[in-house]
Amino acid sequence: MLFFTQCFGAVLDLIHLRFQHYKAKRVFSAAGQLVCVVNPTHSLKYAPTRCAAVQTSAEQGVLPPCHHHEAVHDPQLVPCTCPLFSCPWEGHLEVVVSHLRQTHRINILQGAEIVFLATEMHLPAPTDWIIMHSCLGHQFLLVLRKQEKYEGHPQFFATMMLIGTPTQADNFTYRLELNRNQRRLKWEATPRSVLECVDSVISDGDCLVLNTSLAQLFSDNGSLAIGIAITTSKVHNAEAEM
Amino acid sequence: MLFFTQCFGAVLDLIHLRFQHYKAKRVFSAAGQLVCVVNPTHSLKYAPTRCAAVQTSAEQGVLPPCHHHEAVHDPQLVPCTCPLFSCPWEGHLEVVVSHLRQTHRINILQGAEIVFLATEMHLPAPTDWIIMHSCLGHQFLLVLRKQEKYEGHPQFFATMMLIGTPTQADNFTYRLELNRNQRRLKWEATPRSVLECVDSVISDGDCLVLNTSLAQLFSDNGSLAIGIAITTSKVHNAEAEM
Repeated sequence: MLFFTQCFGAVLDLIHLRFQHYKAKRVFSAAGQLVCVVNPTHSLKYAPTRCAAVQTSAEQGVLPPCHHHEAVHDPQLVPCTCPLFSCPWEGHLEVVVSHLRQTHRINILQGAEIVFLATEMHLPAPTDWIIMHSCLGHQFLLVLRKQEKYEGHPQFFATMMLIGTPTQADNFTYRLELNRNQRRLKWEATPRSVLECVDSVISDGDCLVLNTSLAQLFSDNGSLAIGIAITTSKVHNAEAEM
Repeated sequence: MLFFTQCFGAVLDLIHLRFQHYKAKRVFSAAGQLVCVVNPTHSLKYAPTRCAAVQTSAEQGVLPPCHHHEAVHDPQLVPCTCPLFSCPWEGHLEVVVSHLRQTHRINILQGAEIVFLATEMHLPAPTDWIIMHSCLGHQFLLVLRKQEKYEGHPQFFATMMLIGTPTQADNFTYRLELNRNQRRLKWEATPRSVLECVDSVISDGDCLVLNTSLAQLFSDNGSLAIGIAITTSKVHNAEAEM
Protein backbone atom coordinates (compact mmCIF):
# COMPACT_ATOMS: atom_id res chain seq x y z
CA MET A 1 0.00 0.00 0.00
CA LEU A 2 2.83 2.38 0.99
CA PHE A 3 4.55 1.56 -2.31
CA PHE A 4 1.45 2.56 -4.32
CA THR A 5 1.03 5.78 -2.29
CA GLN A 6 4.68 6.70 -2.99
CA CYS A 7 4.30 5.85 -6.69
CA PHE A 8 1.19 8.02 -6.90
CA GLY A 9 3.05 10.88 -5.16
CA ALA A 10 5.94 10.58 -7.61
CA VAL A 11 3.56 10.65 -10.60
CA LEU A 12 1.85 13.75 -9.19
CA ASP A 13 5.26 15.43 -8.74
CA LEU A 14 6.16 14.63 -12.34
CA ILE A 15 2.86 16.06 -13.61
CA HIS A 16 3.43 19.20 -11.50
CA LEU A 17 6.99 19.65 -12.83
CA ARG A 18 5.82 19.03 -16.40
CA PHE A 19 3.10 21.66 -15.92
CA GLN A 20 5.58 24.22 -14.56
CA HIS A 21 7.98 23.43 -17.39
CA TYR A 22 5.19 23.96 -19.92
CA LYS A 23 4.17 27.27 -18.35
CA ALA A 24 7.73 28.61 -18.32
CA LYS A 25 8.15 27.49 -21.90
CA ARG A 26 5.01 29.35 -22.90
CA VAL A 27 6.32 32.62 -21.40
CA PHE A 28 9.70 32.38 -23.08
CA SER A 29 8.62 30.36 -26.14
CA ALA A 30 9.37 33.13 -28.65
CA ALA A 31 13.09 32.55 -28.25
CA GLY A 32 12.79 28.72 -28.18
CA GLN A 33 14.88 28.59 -25.02
CA LEU A 34 15.80 25.64 -22.85
CA VAL A 35 13.90 25.61 -19.55
CA CYS A 36 15.60 24.20 -16.47
CA VAL A 37 13.55 23.48 -13.34
CA VAL A 38 15.72 24.28 -10.31
CA ASN A 39 14.71 23.04 -6.88
CA PRO A 40 15.64 24.96 -3.73
CA THR A 41 18.32 23.96 -1.25
CA HIS A 42 18.29 25.19 2.31
CA SER A 43 21.65 26.91 2.71
CA LEU A 44 23.78 25.05 5.24
CA LYS A 45 26.90 27.10 4.95
CA TYR A 46 27.82 30.17 6.84
CA ALA A 47 31.52 30.85 6.85
CA PRO A 48 32.12 34.60 6.41
CA THR A 49 35.77 34.36 7.46
CA ARG A 50 36.58 32.04 4.58
CA CYS A 51 34.81 34.36 2.17
CA ALA A 52 36.72 37.39 3.42
CA ALA A 53 39.99 35.54 2.85
CA VAL A 54 38.94 34.47 -0.65
CA GLN A 55 37.89 37.97 -1.62
CA THR A 56 41.04 39.65 -0.37
CA SER A 57 43.19 37.22 -2.32
CA ALA A 58 41.11 37.67 -5.47
CA GLU A 59 41.50 41.45 -5.23
CA GLN A 60 45.25 41.04 -4.96
CA GLY A 61 45.19 38.90 -8.11
CA VAL A 62 46.47 35.85 -6.25
CA LEU A 63 44.55 32.59 -6.26
CA PRO A 64 43.46 32.14 -2.66
CA PRO A 65 44.83 29.46 -0.35
CA CYS A 66 42.22 27.37 1.45
CA HIS A 67 41.40 28.68 4.89
CA HIS A 68 40.67 25.20 6.22
CA HIS A 69 43.97 23.61 5.15
CA GLU A 70 46.71 25.82 6.40
CA ALA A 71 49.33 23.16 5.74
CA VAL A 72 48.80 23.42 1.97
CA HIS A 73 50.55 26.36 0.34
CA ASP A 74 50.07 25.72 -3.39
CA PRO A 75 48.85 29.12 -4.73
CA GLN A 76 47.30 27.37 -7.74
CA LEU A 77 44.69 25.70 -5.54
CA VAL A 78 41.29 27.25 -4.96
CA PRO A 79 38.73 26.27 -2.31
CA CYS A 80 35.36 24.78 -3.22
CA THR A 81 33.20 27.60 -4.64
CA CYS A 82 29.85 25.95 -3.84
CA PRO A 83 27.71 28.60 -2.11
CA LEU A 84 25.71 25.94 -0.26
CA PHE A 85 28.16 24.04 1.86
CA SER A 86 31.26 24.76 3.87
CA CYS A 87 33.28 22.15 1.99
CA PRO A 88 36.93 21.35 2.80
CA TRP A 89 37.75 20.47 -0.84
CA GLU A 90 40.35 22.40 -2.77
CA GLY A 91 41.80 21.99 -6.23
CA HIS A 92 42.77 23.71 -9.44
CA LEU A 93 40.29 26.14 -11.02
CA GLU A 94 39.94 23.79 -14.02
CA VAL A 95 38.44 21.01 -11.87
CA VAL A 96 36.01 23.17 -9.82
CA VAL A 97 33.18 22.38 -12.30
CA SER A 98 33.57 18.61 -12.01
CA HIS A 99 33.79 18.90 -8.20
CA LEU A 100 30.53 20.94 -8.11
CA ARG A 101 28.78 18.42 -10.39
CA GLN A 102 30.01 15.27 -8.69
CA THR A 103 30.12 16.23 -5.02
CA HIS A 104 27.39 18.88 -4.78
CA ARG A 105 25.17 17.54 -7.58
CA ILE A 106 24.80 20.96 -9.22
CA ASN A 107 23.31 20.58 -12.69
CA ILE A 108 24.99 22.04 -15.75
CA LEU A 109 23.14 23.37 -18.79
CA GLN A 110 24.35 24.22 -22.30
CA GLY A 111 23.16 27.10 -24.47
CA ALA A 112 23.53 30.86 -24.90
CA GLU A 113 19.99 31.57 -23.63
CA ILE A 114 18.21 29.45 -21.04
CA VAL A 115 15.30 29.81 -18.62
CA PHE A 116 15.98 29.15 -14.95
CA LEU A 117 12.72 28.10 -13.28
CA ALA A 118 13.12 28.34 -9.50
CA THR A 119 10.42 26.39 -7.66
CA GLU A 120 8.97 26.79 -4.15
CA MET A 121 9.74 30.48 -3.77
CA HIS A 122 7.69 30.53 -0.56
CA LEU A 123 10.30 28.53 1.41
CA PRO A 124 11.79 30.47 4.33
CA ALA A 125 15.18 32.20 4.07
CA PRO A 126 18.04 31.30 3.80
CA THR A 127 17.39 29.26 0.64
CA ASP A 128 19.45 28.96 -2.55
CA TRP A 129 18.62 27.92 -6.12
CA ILE A 130 21.77 27.05 -8.05
CA ILE A 131 22.77 25.78 -11.49
CA MET A 132 25.84 25.93 -13.69
CA HIS A 133 25.57 27.27 -17.20
CA SER A 134 28.01 26.32 -19.94
CA CYS A 135 28.26 28.93 -22.67
CA LEU A 136 30.83 30.58 -24.99
CA GLY A 137 33.49 28.08 -23.91
CA HIS A 138 33.15 28.89 -20.19
CA GLN A 139 31.12 27.77 -17.19
CA PHE A 140 29.05 30.13 -15.08
CA LEU A 141 27.37 29.65 -11.72
CA LEU A 142 23.89 31.14 -11.39
CA VAL A 143 22.79 31.76 -7.81
CA LEU A 144 19.33 32.88 -6.69
CA ARG A 145 19.25 33.43 -2.94
CA LYS A 146 16.40 34.23 -0.56
CA GLN A 147 17.90 36.03 2.41
CA GLU A 148 16.81 38.28 5.25
CA LYS A 149 19.20 41.21 4.98
CA TYR A 150 16.76 43.16 7.15
CA GLU A 151 15.25 40.92 9.83
CA GLY A 152 11.73 39.81 9.00
CA HIS A 153 11.96 41.11 5.39
CA PRO A 154 13.29 38.41 3.04
CA GLN A 155 14.54 39.53 -0.36
CA PHE A 156 15.68 37.65 -3.45
CA PHE A 157 19.16 38.20 -4.88
CA ALA A 158 20.24 36.80 -8.25
CA THR A 159 23.74 36.89 -9.71
CA MET A 160 25.95 35.07 -12.17
CA MET A 161 29.60 34.23 -11.49
CA LEU A 162 32.23 32.99 -13.91
CA ILE A 163 34.08 29.85 -12.89
CA GLY A 164 37.30 31.54 -13.87
CA THR A 165 39.49 34.52 -12.94
CA PRO A 166 38.26 38.14 -12.56
CA THR A 167 40.19 39.05 -15.75
CA GLN A 168 38.33 36.37 -17.72
CA ALA A 169 35.01 37.51 -16.19
CA ASP A 170 35.52 41.04 -17.57
CA ASN A 171 35.06 39.70 -21.11
CA PHE A 172 31.40 38.80 -20.55
CA THR A 173 28.02 40.41 -19.90
CA TYR A 174 25.14 38.47 -18.38
CA ARG A 175 21.48 39.40 -18.50
CA LEU A 176 18.72 38.24 -16.16
CA GLU A 177 15.16 38.92 -17.28
CA LEU A 178 11.80 38.57 -15.56
CA ASN A 179 8.68 38.93 -17.67
CA ARG A 180 5.15 38.44 -16.40
CA ASN A 181 1.86 40.23 -15.73
CA GLN A 182 2.68 43.08 -18.16
CA ARG A 183 5.86 43.83 -16.24
CA ARG A 184 9.44 43.30 -17.32
CA LEU A 185 12.62 43.65 -15.28
CA LYS A 186 16.07 43.30 -16.81
CA TRP A 187 19.45 43.33 -15.09
CA GLU A 188 22.68 43.41 -17.11
CA ALA A 189 26.16 43.36 -15.65
CA THR A 190 29.63 41.92 -15.93
CA PRO A 191 29.77 38.57 -14.08
CA ARG A 192 32.01 38.38 -11.04
CA SER A 193 34.59 35.63 -10.68
CA VAL A 194 33.74 32.77 -8.28
CA LEU A 195 37.01 33.71 -6.55
CA GLU A 196 35.19 36.83 -5.30
CA CYS A 197 32.70 34.84 -3.17
CA VAL A 198 28.97 35.03 -3.87
CA ASP A 199 28.18 36.05 -0.26
CA SER A 200 29.99 39.37 -0.62
CA VAL A 201 28.34 40.14 -4.00
CA ILE A 202 24.95 39.63 -2.34
CA SER A 203 25.76 41.58 0.81
CA ASP A 204 26.97 44.48 -1.42
CA GLY A 205 23.61 44.33 -3.24
CA ASP A 206 25.46 44.44 -6.60
CA CYS A 207 23.03 42.05 -8.29
CA LEU A 208 19.37 41.73 -9.24
CA VAL A 209 17.41 42.43 -6.04
CA LEU A 210 13.71 41.67 -5.64
CA ASN A 211 11.46 42.49 -2.72
CA THR A 212 8.99 39.71 -1.83
CA SER A 213 6.07 41.65 -3.31
CA LEU A 214 7.82 42.07 -6.68
CA ALA A 215 8.94 38.42 -6.66
CA GLN A 216 5.29 37.43 -6.17
CA LEU A 217 4.20 39.58 -9.12
CA PHE A 218 6.71 37.78 -11.34
CA SER A 219 5.99 34.31 -9.92
CA ASP A 220 3.54 31.83 -11.34
CA ASN A 221 2.16 29.18 -9.02
CA GLY A 222 5.10 29.56 -6.61
CA SER A 223 7.79 29.40 -9.32
CA LEU A 224 9.93 32.20 -10.70
CA ALA A 225 11.16 32.00 -14.33
CA ILE A 226 14.37 33.93 -15.00
CA GLY A 227 15.57 34.26 -18.59
CA ILE A 228 19.37 34.15 -18.77
CA ALA A 229 21.62 35.27 -21.60
CA ILE A 230 25.39 35.61 -21.75
CA THR A 231 27.29 37.59 -24.37
CA THR A 232 30.84 38.79 -24.85
CA SER A 233 30.97 42.36 -23.55
CA LYS A 234 31.00 44.35 -26.80
CA VAL A 235 28.16 46.59 -25.59
CA HIS A 236 30.21 47.81 -22.65
CA ASN A 237 33.21 48.54 -24.84
CA ALA A 238 31.02 50.63 -27.16
CA GLU A 239 29.60 52.45 -24.10
CA ALA A 240 33.10 53.23 -22.82
CA GLU A 241 34.00 54.78 -26.17
CA MET A 242 31.00 57.12 -26.08
CA MET B 1 29.73 91.96 0.44
CA LEU B 2 26.81 89.62 1.18
CA PHE B 3 25.46 90.36 -2.32
CA PHE B 4 28.75 89.30 -3.95
CA THR B 5 28.91 86.13 -1.81
CA GLN B 6 25.38 85.20 -2.88
CA CYS B 7 26.15 85.94 -6.55
CA PHE B 8 29.25 83.77 -6.36
CA GLY B 9 27.16 80.97 -4.76
CA ALA B 10 24.56 81.21 -7.52
CA VAL B 11 27.27 81.05 -10.23
CA LEU B 12 28.79 77.98 -8.56
CA ASP B 13 25.34 76.33 -8.44
CA LEU B 14 24.83 77.05 -12.15
CA ILE B 15 28.24 75.56 -13.02
CA HIS B 16 27.43 72.49 -10.90
CA LEU B 17 24.03 72.00 -12.60
CA ARG B 18 25.57 72.53 -16.04
CA PHE B 19 28.22 69.91 -15.21
CA GLN B 20 25.60 67.40 -14.05
CA HIS B 21 23.52 68.11 -17.15
CA TYR B 22 26.57 67.52 -19.34
CA LYS B 23 27.38 64.25 -17.58
CA ALA B 24 23.83 62.91 -17.91
CA LYS B 25 23.82 63.96 -21.56
CA ARG B 26 27.06 62.07 -22.15
CA VAL B 27 25.60 58.83 -20.71
CA PHE B 28 22.41 59.02 -22.76
CA SER B 29 23.84 60.96 -25.72
CA ALA B 30 23.39 58.12 -28.23
CA ALA B 31 19.64 58.69 -28.28
CA GLY B 32 19.91 62.52 -28.29
CA GLN B 33 17.49 62.72 -25.37
CA LEU B 34 16.33 65.72 -23.41
CA VAL B 35 17.85 65.87 -19.91
CA CYS B 36 15.80 67.35 -17.08
CA VAL B 37 17.49 68.17 -13.77
CA VAL B 38 14.98 67.45 -10.97
CA ASN B 39 15.60 68.79 -7.49
CA PRO B 40 14.30 66.95 -4.42
CA THR B 41 11.36 68.02 -2.29
CA HIS B 42 11.00 66.88 1.28
CA SER B 43 7.59 65.18 1.36
CA LEU B 44 5.21 67.11 3.60
CA LYS B 45 2.13 65.01 3.03
CA TYR B 46 1.03 61.95 4.87
CA ALA B 47 -2.65 61.23 4.47
CA PRO B 48 -3.17 57.48 4.11
CA THR B 49 -6.93 57.72 4.74
CA ARG B 50 -7.41 59.97 1.72
CA CYS B 51 -5.38 57.60 -0.42
CA ALA B 52 -7.41 54.60 0.68
CA ALA B 53 -10.60 56.41 -0.31
CA VAL B 54 -9.16 57.41 -3.70
CA GLN B 55 -7.99 53.88 -4.44
CA THR B 56 -11.25 52.20 -3.51
CA SER B 57 -13.20 54.58 -5.76
CA ALA B 58 -10.77 54.06 -8.64
CA GLU B 59 -11.15 50.27 -8.31
CA GLN B 60 -14.92 50.64 -8.46
CA GLY B 61 -14.56 52.67 -11.68
CA VAL B 62 -16.02 55.78 -10.01
CA LEU B 63 -14.11 59.03 -9.90
CA PRO B 64 -13.41 59.59 -6.21
CA PRO B 65 -15.04 62.29 -4.14
CA CYS B 66 -12.68 64.43 -2.12
CA HIS B 67 -12.22 63.20 1.42
CA HIS B 68 -11.65 66.72 2.75
CA HIS B 69 -14.80 68.28 1.27
CA GLU B 70 -17.67 66.08 2.25
CA ALA B 71 -20.22 68.72 1.25
CA VAL B 72 -19.27 68.40 -2.47
CA HIS B 73 -20.82 65.42 -4.24
CA ASP B 74 -19.93 66.01 -7.91
CA PRO B 75 -18.56 62.60 -9.06
CA GLN B 76 -16.70 64.31 -11.93
CA LEU B 77 -14.35 66.04 -9.49
CA VAL B 78 -11.03 64.54 -8.48
CA PRO B 79 -8.80 65.60 -5.58
CA CYS B 80 -5.35 67.08 -6.15
CA THR B 81 -3.02 64.23 -7.23
CA CYS B 82 0.21 65.91 -6.12
CA PRO B 83 2.13 63.31 -4.07
CA LEU B 84 3.92 66.04 -2.09
CA PHE B 85 1.21 67.98 -0.31
CA SER B 86 -2.11 67.31 1.36
CA CYS B 87 -3.89 69.86 -0.82
CA PRO B 88 -7.62 70.66 -0.45
CA TRP B 89 -8.03 71.43 -4.18
CA GLU B 90 -10.38 69.44 -6.34
CA GLY B 91 -11.42 69.77 -9.97
CA HIS B 92 -12.01 67.93 -13.21
CA LEU B 93 -9.36 65.48 -14.43
CA GLU B 94 -8.67 67.75 -17.44
CA VAL B 95 -7.42 70.59 -15.21
CA VAL B 96 -5.24 68.50 -12.86
CA VAL B 97 -2.14 69.22 -15.00
CA SER B 98 -2.57 73.00 -14.88
CA HIS B 99 -3.21 72.81 -11.11
CA LEU B 100 0.01 70.78 -10.59
CA ARG B 101 1.99 73.26 -12.71
CA GLN B 102 0.59 76.45 -11.26
CA THR B 103 0.05 75.59 -7.59
CA HIS B 104 2.73 72.95 -6.97
CA ARG B 105 5.26 74.22 -9.55
CA ILE B 106 5.83 70.76 -11.03
CA ASN B 107 7.71 71.05 -14.32
CA ILE B 108 6.39 69.49 -17.51
CA LEU B 109 8.58 68.08 -20.27
CA GLN B 110 7.78 67.14 -23.87
CA GLY B 111 9.20 64.19 -25.80
CA ALA B 112 8.90 60.43 -26.18
CA GLU B 113 12.25 59.77 -24.47
CA ILE B 114 13.72 61.95 -21.76
CA VAL B 115 16.35 61.68 -19.04
CA PHE B 116 15.25 62.44 -15.48
CA LEU B 117 18.30 63.55 -13.49
CA ALA B 118 17.49 63.40 -9.77
CA THR B 119 19.95 65.43 -7.69
CA GLU B 120 21.01 65.12 -4.03
CA MET B 121 20.19 61.43 -3.64
CA HIS B 122 21.87 61.48 -0.21
CA LEU B 123 19.05 63.53 1.39
CA PRO B 124 17.21 61.68 4.18
CA ALA B 125 13.87 59.91 3.57
CA PRO B 126 11.07 60.80 2.95
CA THR B 127 12.08 62.76 -0.17
CA ASP B 128 10.38 62.97 -3.57
CA TRP B 129 11.62 63.91 -7.04
CA ILE B 130 8.71 64.72 -9.36
CA ILE B 131 8.11 65.89 -12.92
CA MET B 132 5.32 65.64 -15.46
CA HIS B 133 6.00 64.22 -18.87
CA SER B 134 3.88 65.09 -21.90
CA CYS B 135 3.93 62.40 -24.56
CA LEU B 136 1.64 60.69 -27.11
CA GLY B 137 -1.13 63.20 -26.41
CA HIS B 138 -1.21 62.50 -22.66
CA GLN B 139 0.47 63.72 -19.48
CA PHE B 140 2.28 61.40 -17.08
CA LEU B 141 3.57 62.00 -13.56
CA LEU B 142 6.99 60.53 -12.78
CA VAL B 143 7.67 60.01 -9.08
CA LEU B 144 10.98 58.93 -7.55
CA ARG B 145 10.63 58.49 -3.80
CA LYS B 146 13.19 57.78 -1.08
CA GLN B 147 11.35 56.05 1.75
CA GLU B 148 12.13 53.88 4.76
CA LYS B 149 9.76 50.96 4.29
CA TYR B 150 11.93 49.07 6.79
CA GLU B 151 13.13 51.39 9.54
CA GLY B 152 16.73 52.49 9.10
CA HIS B 153 16.91 51.08 5.53
CA PRO B 154 15.87 53.70 2.96
CA GLN B 155 15.00 52.47 -0.52
CA PHE B 156 14.23 54.28 -3.78
CA PHE B 157 10.92 53.67 -5.58
CA ALA B 158 10.25 54.96 -9.10
CA THR B 159 6.94 54.83 -10.94
CA MET B 160 5.02 56.57 -13.69
CA MET B 161 1.32 57.40 -13.45
CA LEU B 162 -1.02 58.58 -16.20
CA ILE B 163 -2.96 61.75 -15.48
CA GLY B 164 -6.08 60.02 -16.79
CA THR B 165 -8.34 57.07 -16.02
CA PRO B 166 -7.18 53.46 -15.39
CA THR B 167 -8.71 52.44 -18.76
CA GLN B 168 -6.65 55.08 -20.58
CA ALA B 169 -3.52 54.00 -18.64
CA ASP B 170 -3.87 50.42 -19.97
CA ASN B 171 -2.99 51.67 -23.47
CA PHE B 172 0.57 52.58 -22.53
CA THR B 173 3.85 51.01 -21.45
CA TYR B 174 6.54 53.00 -19.67
CA ARG B 175 10.19 52.09 -19.33
CA LEU B 176 12.67 53.31 -16.73
CA GLU B 177 16.34 52.61 -17.41
CA LEU B 178 19.47 53.01 -15.33
CA ASN B 179 22.81 52.59 -17.06
CA ARG B 180 26.17 53.15 -15.41
CA ASN B 181 29.36 51.37 -14.31
CA GLN B 182 28.81 48.47 -16.74
CA ARG B 183 25.44 47.75 -15.18
CA ARG B 184 22.01 48.23 -16.68
CA LEU B 185 18.62 47.94 -14.99
CA LYS B 186 15.35 48.23 -16.93
CA TRP B 187 11.81 48.25 -15.60
CA GLU B 188 8.84 48.11 -17.96
CA ALA B 189 5.20 48.18 -16.92
CA THR B 190 1.78 49.63 -17.63
CA PRO B 191 1.44 53.00 -15.91
CA ARG B 192 -1.14 53.28 -13.16
CA SER B 193 -3.73 56.04 -13.18
CA VAL B 194 -3.16 58.96 -10.78
CA LEU B 195 -6.60 58.06 -9.41
CA GLU B 196 -4.93 54.98 -7.86
CA CYS B 197 -2.71 57.05 -5.51
CA VAL B 198 1.08 56.85 -5.77
CA ASP B 199 1.45 55.92 -2.08
CA SER B 200 -0.31 52.58 -2.54
CA VAL B 201 1.70 51.73 -5.69
CA ILE B 202 4.89 52.30 -3.68
CA SER B 203 3.72 50.42 -0.59
CA ASP B 204 2.76 47.47 -2.84
CA GLY B 205 6.32 47.58 -4.27
CA ASP B 206 4.87 47.37 -7.81
CA CYS B 207 7.47 49.70 -9.29
CA LEU B 208 11.22 50.01 -9.82
CA VAL B 209 12.80 49.41 -6.40
CA LEU B 210 16.44 50.20 -5.61
CA ASN B 211 18.34 49.45 -2.43
CA THR B 212 20.68 52.25 -1.35
CA SER B 213 23.76 50.28 -2.44
CA LEU B 214 22.41 49.77 -5.97
CA ALA B 215 21.30 53.41 -6.18
CA GLN B 216 24.87 54.43 -5.30
CA LEU B 217 26.29 52.19 -8.05
CA PHE B 218 24.04 53.94 -10.59
CA SER B 219 24.60 57.44 -9.20
CA ASP B 220 27.19 59.88 -10.39
CA ASN B 221 28.31 62.59 -8.00
CA GLY B 222 25.12 62.28 -5.94
CA SER B 223 22.74 62.37 -8.94
CA LEU B 224 20.78 59.51 -10.49
CA ALA B 225 19.99 59.61 -14.23
CA ILE B 226 16.86 57.65 -15.20
CA GLY B 227 16.09 57.24 -18.90
CA ILE B 228 12.32 57.32 -19.51
CA ALA B 229 10.40 56.13 -22.54
CA ILE B 230 6.68 55.76 -23.12
CA THR B 231 5.09 53.71 -25.88
CA THR B 232 1.63 52.47 -26.73
CA SER B 233 1.34 48.94 -25.33
CA LYS B 234 1.71 46.85 -28.49
CA VAL B 235 4.39 44.65 -26.88
CA HIS B 236 1.99 43.56 -24.17
CA ASN B 237 -0.75 42.75 -26.65
CA ALA B 238 1.70 40.58 -28.61
CA GLU B 239 2.77 38.87 -25.35
CA ALA B 240 -0.86 38.13 -24.42
CA GLU B 241 -1.37 36.47 -27.80
CA MET B 242 1.62 34.16 -27.29
